[in-house]
Amino acid sequence: MIQKNPLVQLIRKIEKKDIPDIKEILERSNNFNAEEIECALDLINIYFNDPSQKDYEFLCCEHDNRVIGYTCYGPTPLTKGTFDLYWICVGPEFHNLGIGARLLMEAEKSILDSNGRIVIVETSSQEKYLSVVSFYKRNKYSVAAVIKDFYCEGDSKIIFLKRLIP
Amino acid sequence: MIQKNPLVQLIRKIEKKDIPDIKEILERSNNFNAEEIECALDLINIYFNDPSQKDYEFLCCEHDNRVIGYTCYGPTPLTKGTFDLYWICVGPEFHNLGIGARLLMEAEKSILDSNGRIVIVETSSQEKYLSVVSFYKRNKYSVAAVIKDFYCEGDSKIIFLKRLIP
Repeated sequence: MIQKNPLVQLIRKIEKKDIPDIKEILERSNNFNAEEIECALDLINIYFNDPSQKDYEFLCCEHDNRVIGYTCYGPTPLTKGTFDLYWICVGPEFHNLGIGARLLMEAEKSILDSNGRIVIVETSSQEKYLSVVSFYKRNKYSVAAVIKDFYCEGDSKIIFLKRLIP
Repeated sequence: MIQKNPLVQLIRKIEKKDIPDIKEILERSNNFNAEEIECALDLINIYFNDPSQKDYEFLCCEHDNRVIGYTCYGPTPLTKGTFDLYWICVGPEFHNLGIGARLLMEAEKSILDSNGRIVIVETSSQEKYLSVVSFYKRNKYSVAAVIKDFYCEGDSKIIFLKRLIP
Protein backbone atom coordinates (compact mmCIF):
# COMPACT_ATOMS: atom_id res chain seq x y z
CA MET A 1 0.00 0.00 0.00
CA ILE A 2 1.44 3.35 -1.02
CA GLN A 3 0.99 6.11 1.50
CA LYS A 4 0.13 9.70 0.68
CA ASN A 5 3.23 11.59 -0.47
CA PRO A 6 5.84 8.96 0.40
CA LEU A 7 7.93 9.86 -2.63
CA VAL A 8 8.71 13.46 -1.87
CA GLN A 9 12.44 12.87 -1.55
CA LEU A 10 12.77 11.12 -4.88
CA ILE A 11 12.16 14.04 -7.21
CA ARG A 12 15.27 14.40 -9.40
CA LYS A 13 16.46 15.34 -12.90
CA ILE A 14 15.86 12.66 -15.52
CA GLU A 15 18.67 10.41 -16.72
CA LYS A 16 19.02 8.54 -20.00
CA LYS A 17 18.12 5.24 -18.35
CA ASP A 18 14.67 6.67 -17.45
CA ILE A 19 13.52 6.93 -21.08
CA PRO A 20 11.82 3.49 -21.25
CA ASP A 21 9.92 4.18 -18.00
CA ILE A 22 8.79 7.59 -19.24
CA LYS A 23 7.69 6.12 -22.56
CA GLU A 24 5.66 3.51 -20.72
CA ILE A 25 4.00 6.09 -18.47
CA LEU A 26 3.03 8.19 -21.48
CA GLU A 27 1.66 5.16 -23.33
CA ARG A 28 -0.36 3.88 -20.38
CA SER A 29 -1.85 7.31 -19.76
CA ASN A 30 -5.11 7.87 -21.60
CA ASN A 31 -4.32 11.54 -21.98
CA PHE A 32 -2.00 11.50 -25.00
CA ASN A 33 -2.35 10.30 -28.58
CA ALA A 34 0.49 8.78 -30.63
CA GLU A 35 1.52 12.15 -32.09
CA GLU A 36 1.66 13.76 -28.65
CA ILE A 37 3.72 10.88 -27.21
CA GLU A 38 6.16 11.16 -30.13
CA CYS A 39 6.43 14.89 -29.47
CA ALA A 40 7.07 14.29 -25.74
CA LEU A 41 9.82 11.77 -26.55
CA ASP A 42 11.34 14.11 -29.15
CA LEU A 43 11.84 16.73 -26.43
CA ILE A 44 13.63 14.14 -24.27
CA ASN A 45 15.92 13.28 -27.18
CA ILE A 46 16.74 16.95 -27.70
CA TYR A 47 17.53 17.20 -23.99
CA PHE A 48 20.01 14.33 -24.05
CA ASN A 49 21.49 14.79 -27.52
CA ASP A 50 22.07 18.54 -27.57
CA PRO A 51 24.05 19.58 -24.48
CA SER A 52 23.83 23.25 -25.54
CA GLN A 53 20.02 23.32 -25.50
CA LYS A 54 18.37 25.37 -22.77
CA ASP A 55 14.78 25.09 -23.93
CA TYR A 56 13.71 22.03 -21.95
CA GLU A 57 14.19 20.88 -18.38
CA PHE A 58 12.93 17.61 -16.92
CA LEU A 59 12.18 16.37 -13.43
CA CYS A 60 10.96 12.92 -12.52
CA CYS A 61 9.71 11.03 -9.51
CA GLU A 62 11.46 7.74 -8.77
CA HIS A 63 9.87 4.96 -6.71
CA ASP A 64 11.16 1.42 -6.22
CA ASN A 65 13.96 1.96 -8.76
CA ARG A 66 11.72 3.16 -11.53
CA VAL A 67 10.31 6.44 -12.74
CA ILE A 68 6.58 6.76 -12.04
CA GLY A 69 6.05 10.36 -13.14
CA TYR A 70 7.82 13.21 -14.92
CA THR A 71 7.45 16.79 -16.01
CA CYS A 72 8.96 18.86 -18.82
CA TYR A 73 9.16 22.65 -18.77
CA GLY A 74 11.30 25.43 -20.15
CA PRO A 75 11.66 29.13 -20.83
CA THR A 76 9.19 30.42 -23.42
CA PRO A 77 11.24 31.68 -26.40
CA LEU A 78 11.43 35.47 -26.82
CA THR A 79 10.15 36.18 -23.32
CA LYS A 80 11.82 37.32 -20.12
CA GLY A 81 10.69 35.19 -17.20
CA THR A 82 7.82 33.29 -18.79
CA PHE A 83 8.03 29.50 -18.75
CA ASP A 84 5.95 26.81 -20.44
CA LEU A 85 5.05 23.66 -18.57
CA TYR A 86 4.90 21.29 -21.55
CA TRP A 87 4.15 17.92 -19.98
CA ILE A 88 3.33 16.45 -16.64
CA CYS A 89 2.44 12.79 -16.43
CA VAL A 90 2.15 10.26 -13.59
CA GLY A 91 1.58 6.51 -14.02
CA PRO A 92 -2.17 5.74 -13.63
CA GLU A 93 -1.69 3.51 -10.55
CA PHE A 94 0.08 6.37 -8.78
CA HIS A 95 -2.62 8.99 -9.26
CA ASN A 96 -4.19 10.80 -6.29
CA LEU A 97 -1.02 10.52 -4.21
CA GLY A 98 0.10 14.09 -4.69
CA ILE A 99 2.93 13.13 -7.04
CA GLY A 100 1.80 15.43 -9.84
CA ALA A 101 1.45 18.34 -7.41
CA ARG A 102 4.91 17.62 -6.01
CA LEU A 103 6.47 17.51 -9.50
CA LEU A 104 4.69 20.75 -10.33
CA MET A 105 5.90 22.40 -7.13
CA GLU A 106 9.51 21.37 -7.77
CA ALA A 107 9.26 22.61 -11.38
CA GLU A 108 7.93 25.96 -10.10
CA LYS A 109 10.80 26.20 -7.60
CA SER A 110 13.33 25.55 -10.35
CA ILE A 111 11.59 28.13 -12.58
CA LEU A 112 11.76 30.69 -9.76
CA ASP A 113 15.49 29.91 -9.41
CA SER A 114 15.84 30.78 -13.13
CA ASN A 115 14.11 34.14 -12.55
CA GLY A 116 10.80 32.88 -13.89
CA ARG A 117 7.75 35.05 -13.16
CA ILE A 118 4.96 33.27 -14.99
CA VAL A 119 4.16 29.65 -15.78
CA ILE A 120 1.90 28.87 -18.74
CA VAL A 121 0.17 25.53 -19.28
CA GLU A 122 -1.97 24.72 -22.29
CA THR A 123 -4.55 21.97 -22.21
CA SER A 124 -7.58 20.78 -24.10
CA SER A 125 -11.22 21.47 -23.29
CA GLN A 126 -12.17 17.85 -24.04
CA GLU A 127 -14.18 16.14 -21.32
CA LYS A 128 -11.46 13.53 -20.79
CA TYR A 129 -9.14 16.31 -19.62
CA LEU A 130 -11.50 17.51 -16.87
CA SER A 131 -9.22 16.02 -14.21
CA VAL A 132 -6.28 17.88 -15.77
CA VAL A 133 -8.20 21.16 -15.64
CA SER A 134 -9.13 20.46 -12.03
CA PHE A 135 -5.47 19.60 -11.23
CA TYR A 136 -4.22 23.00 -12.42
CA LYS A 137 -7.03 24.88 -10.69
CA ARG A 138 -6.23 23.05 -7.44
CA ASN A 139 -2.62 24.15 -7.86
CA LYS A 140 -3.54 27.84 -8.20
CA TYR A 141 -3.45 28.15 -11.98
CA SER A 142 -6.11 30.39 -13.46
CA VAL A 143 -7.60 30.39 -16.94
CA ALA A 144 -5.90 33.18 -18.91
CA ALA A 145 -7.61 32.43 -22.21
CA VAL A 146 -9.68 29.93 -24.16
CA ILE A 147 -8.98 29.58 -27.89
CA LYS A 148 -12.11 28.04 -29.39
CA ASP A 149 -11.71 25.05 -31.75
CA PHE A 150 -7.92 25.34 -31.53
CA TYR A 151 -6.98 21.63 -31.58
CA CYS A 152 -9.85 20.76 -33.92
CA GLU A 153 -13.52 21.69 -34.29
CA GLY A 154 -15.09 21.26 -30.84
CA ASP A 155 -11.75 20.96 -29.04
CA SER A 156 -10.59 24.27 -27.61
CA LYS A 157 -7.31 25.24 -26.00
CA ILE A 158 -7.38 26.39 -22.39
CA ILE A 159 -4.37 28.51 -21.40
CA PHE A 160 -3.65 28.34 -17.69
CA LEU A 161 -1.36 30.83 -16.02
CA LYS A 162 0.25 31.13 -12.62
CA ARG A 163 2.26 34.09 -11.37
CA LEU A 164 5.05 32.80 -9.17
CA ILE A 165 5.70 34.48 -5.86
CA PRO A 166 9.42 34.58 -5.00
CA MET B 1 7.28 56.24 -57.70
CA ILE B 2 5.72 52.96 -56.62
CA GLN B 3 2.04 52.64 -57.35
CA LYS B 4 -0.48 51.03 -55.02
CA ASN B 5 -0.31 47.23 -55.34
CA PRO B 6 2.00 47.03 -58.34
CA LEU B 7 3.68 43.90 -57.02
CA VAL B 8 0.75 41.55 -56.87
CA GLN B 9 2.15 39.15 -59.42
CA LEU B 10 5.49 38.80 -57.71
CA ILE B 11 4.43 36.87 -54.64
CA ARG B 12 6.36 33.58 -54.66
CA LYS B 13 8.02 30.98 -52.44
CA ILE B 14 11.38 32.04 -51.04
CA GLU B 15 14.63 30.76 -52.52
CA LYS B 16 18.04 30.41 -50.91
CA LYS B 17 19.32 33.49 -52.73
CA ASP B 18 16.68 35.61 -50.93
CA ILE B 19 18.22 35.12 -47.48
CA PRO B 20 20.43 38.29 -47.52
CA ASP B 21 17.46 40.43 -48.61
CA ILE B 22 15.25 38.97 -45.89
CA LYS B 23 17.95 39.49 -43.27
CA GLU B 24 18.26 43.11 -44.35
CA ILE B 25 14.50 43.70 -44.19
CA LEU B 26 14.36 42.24 -40.69
CA GLU B 27 17.31 44.34 -39.54
CA ARG B 28 15.97 47.59 -41.00
CA SER B 29 12.56 47.01 -39.45
CA ASN B 30 12.20 48.53 -36.01
CA ASN B 31 9.86 45.76 -34.95
CA PHE B 32 12.34 43.01 -34.07
CA ASN B 33 15.19 42.76 -31.60
CA ALA B 34 18.41 40.77 -32.21
CA GLU B 35 17.02 37.62 -30.61
CA GLU B 36 13.86 37.76 -32.71
CA ILE B 37 15.82 38.29 -35.92
CA GLU B 38 18.03 35.32 -35.07
CA CYS B 39 14.90 33.25 -34.47
CA ALA B 40 13.39 34.35 -37.81
CA LEU B 41 16.61 33.40 -39.64
CA ASP B 42 16.78 30.06 -37.80
CA LEU B 43 13.39 29.14 -39.23
CA ILE B 44 14.64 29.95 -42.75
CA ASN B 45 17.67 27.73 -42.19
CA ILE B 46 15.43 24.86 -41.05
CA TYR B 47 13.33 25.37 -44.18
CA PHE B 48 16.28 25.08 -46.55
CA ASN B 49 18.39 22.53 -44.65
CA ASP B 50 15.75 19.97 -43.73
CA PRO B 51 13.76 18.94 -46.81
CA SER B 52 11.52 16.70 -44.67
CA GLN B 53 10.30 19.57 -42.48
CA LYS B 54 6.67 20.59 -42.86
CA ASP B 55 6.48 23.08 -40.02
CA TYR B 56 7.33 26.26 -41.89
CA GLU B 57 6.29 27.76 -45.20
CA PHE B 58 7.56 31.02 -46.66
CA LEU B 59 6.24 33.47 -49.22
CA CYS B 60 7.96 36.62 -50.35
CA CYS B 61 7.31 39.64 -52.51
CA GLU B 62 9.90 40.39 -55.18
CA HIS B 63 10.34 43.83 -56.70
CA ASP B 64 13.11 44.98 -59.00
CA ASN B 65 15.03 41.71 -58.56
CA ARG B 66 15.03 41.81 -54.81
CA VAL B 67 12.82 40.66 -52.00
CA ILE B 68 11.05 43.53 -50.24
CA GLY B 69 8.80 41.55 -47.91
CA TYR B 70 8.20 38.03 -46.66
CA THR B 71 6.00 35.94 -44.43
CA CYS B 72 6.51 32.69 -42.53
CA TYR B 73 3.67 30.46 -41.41
CA GLY B 74 2.98 26.81 -40.70
CA PRO B 75 0.68 24.25 -39.15
CA THR B 76 0.47 24.52 -35.36
CA PRO B 77 1.85 21.26 -33.90
CA LEU B 78 -0.73 18.85 -32.44
CA THR B 79 -3.69 20.61 -34.06
CA LYS B 80 -5.90 19.79 -37.02
CA GLY B 81 -6.31 22.82 -39.24
CA THR B 82 -4.80 25.53 -37.04
CA PHE B 83 -1.89 27.50 -38.47
CA ASP B 84 0.49 30.00 -36.91
CA LEU B 85 1.55 33.07 -38.83
CA TYR B 86 5.01 33.50 -37.34
CA TRP B 87 6.43 36.47 -39.21
CA ILE B 88 5.38 39.05 -41.71
CA CYS B 89 7.75 41.84 -42.57
CA VAL B 90 7.94 44.43 -45.36
CA GLY B 91 10.87 46.80 -45.98
CA PRO B 92 10.12 50.20 -44.37
CA GLU B 93 10.18 52.12 -47.67
CA PHE B 94 7.50 49.79 -49.06
CA HIS B 95 4.98 50.21 -46.27
CA ASN B 96 1.41 51.39 -46.96
CA LEU B 97 1.39 49.86 -50.42
CA GLY B 98 -0.72 46.85 -49.52
CA ILE B 99 2.23 44.46 -49.74
CA GLY B 100 1.76 43.07 -46.23
CA ALA B 101 -1.96 42.55 -46.86
CA ARG B 102 -1.19 40.79 -50.13
CA LEU B 103 1.39 38.50 -48.48
CA LEU B 104 -1.13 37.76 -45.74
CA MET B 105 -3.87 36.99 -48.28
CA GLU B 106 -1.63 34.61 -50.22
CA ALA B 107 -0.55 32.90 -46.98
CA GLU B 108 -4.22 32.47 -46.03
CA LYS B 109 -4.99 31.00 -49.49
CA SER B 110 -2.16 28.53 -49.10
CA ILE B 111 -3.33 27.65 -45.57
CA LEU B 112 -6.86 27.02 -46.90
CA ASP B 113 -5.36 24.75 -49.58
CA SER B 114 -3.77 22.75 -46.73
CA ASN B 115 -7.18 22.38 -45.04
CA GLY B 116 -6.45 25.15 -42.56
CA ARG B 117 -9.41 26.51 -40.61
CA ILE B 118 -7.84 28.98 -38.23
CA VAL B 119 -4.87 31.36 -38.39
CA ILE B 120 -3.27 32.51 -35.15
CA VAL B 121 -0.94 35.51 -34.87
CA GLU B 122 0.77 36.55 -31.69
CA THR B 123 2.03 40.07 -31.17
CA SER B 124 3.11 42.40 -28.41
CA SER B 125 1.02 45.03 -26.68
CA GLN B 126 3.90 47.54 -26.79
CA GLU B 127 3.04 50.91 -28.23
CA LYS B 128 5.53 50.49 -31.08
CA TYR B 129 3.43 47.58 -32.36
CA LEU B 130 0.23 49.64 -32.63
CA SER B 131 0.51 49.63 -36.42
CA VAL B 132 0.88 45.85 -36.35
CA VAL B 133 -2.27 45.52 -34.23
CA SER B 134 -4.10 47.82 -36.61
CA PHE B 135 -2.81 45.80 -39.60
CA TYR B 136 -4.32 42.55 -38.30
CA LYS B 137 -7.60 44.22 -37.32
CA ARG B 138 -7.85 45.72 -40.83
CA ASN B 139 -7.34 42.24 -42.22
CA LYS B 140 -10.22 40.76 -40.19
CA TYR B 141 -8.24 39.25 -37.34
CA SER B 142 -9.89 39.50 -33.94
CA VAL B 143 -8.33 39.46 -30.48
CA ALA B 144 -8.78 35.95 -29.08
CA ALA B 145 -6.82 36.57 -25.89
CA VAL B 146 -4.42 38.86 -24.08
CA ILE B 147 -1.80 37.26 -21.82
CA LYS B 148 -0.71 39.99 -19.43
CA ASP B 149 3.05 40.56 -18.90
CA PHE B 150 3.83 37.59 -21.16
CA TYR B 151 6.97 38.95 -22.92
CA CYS B 152 8.10 40.82 -19.82
CA GLU B 153 6.51 42.95 -17.10
CA GLY B 154 4.38 45.54 -18.89
CA ASP B 155 4.57 43.80 -22.27
CA SER B 156 1.58 41.55 -22.88
CA LYS B 157 0.92 39.06 -25.66
CA ILE B 158 -2.06 39.69 -27.92
CA ILE B 159 -3.33 36.56 -29.67
CA PHE B 160 -5.14 37.36 -32.91
CA LEU B 161 -7.31 34.80 -34.63
CA LYS B 162 -9.01 34.56 -37.99
CA ARG B 163 -11.37 31.79 -39.07
CA LEU B 164 -10.81 31.16 -42.75
CA ILE B 165 -13.81 30.84 -45.03
CA PRO B 166 -13.26 28.22 -47.77
